[in-house]
Amino acid sequence: MSLLDYFRASRPKSASIAKERLQILVAHERTRNQPSYLPQLQKELLEVIRKYINVEQDAISVNFEQDDNQETLELNIVLPDYQQTDRGLHV
Amino acid sequence: MSLLDYFRASRPKSASIAKERLQILVAHERTRNQPSYLPQLQKELLEVIRKYINVEQDAISVNFEQDDNQETLELNIVLPDYQQTDRGLHV
Repeated sequence: MSLLDYFRASRPKSASIAKERLQILVAHERTRNQPSYLPQLQKELLEVIRKYINVEQDAISVNFEQDDNQETLELNIVLPDYQQTDRGLHV
Repeated sequence: MSLLDYFRASRPKSASIAKERLQILVAHERTRNQPSYLPQLQKELLEVIRKYINVEQDAISVNFEQDDNQETLELNIVLPDYQQTDRGLHV
């Protein structure tokens, strides 16, 4: 299954949901025990994202999973509505 | 299928491959036509990653997929080997 297929399979089926979304997944496959840097990385990733889009804190959902040799971080961001004007698109 | 399951399914089966890996996926579900910012975002994501790990350019593989209403960016990074010394672990 390709990556694009995975995202297609996991997104909501309803055509009425026309929100823009940004999803970021980080997987760290570990071979040794060490402190996780994903929580700090998550913070910096969101700072980068905010350079591109004006996103509120409550529009972001975070999921962190961990097992013996892998940890994954999932950020789901619902992008804000936009207004279309004569001068173009404004988020 | 959970996110962790997806990464489990997609990683190499061979137990002999013990490299650490970091995988970053970004999916942008779009509802309107606009310039993509994922290539620029990719550059900044790698800059953030380099704050945490010393990774060479040739250890990074990039895959970018696009269809009518979604684009995905995939970064696969093989982390450098480490040396274990009396003083601890050094990447």
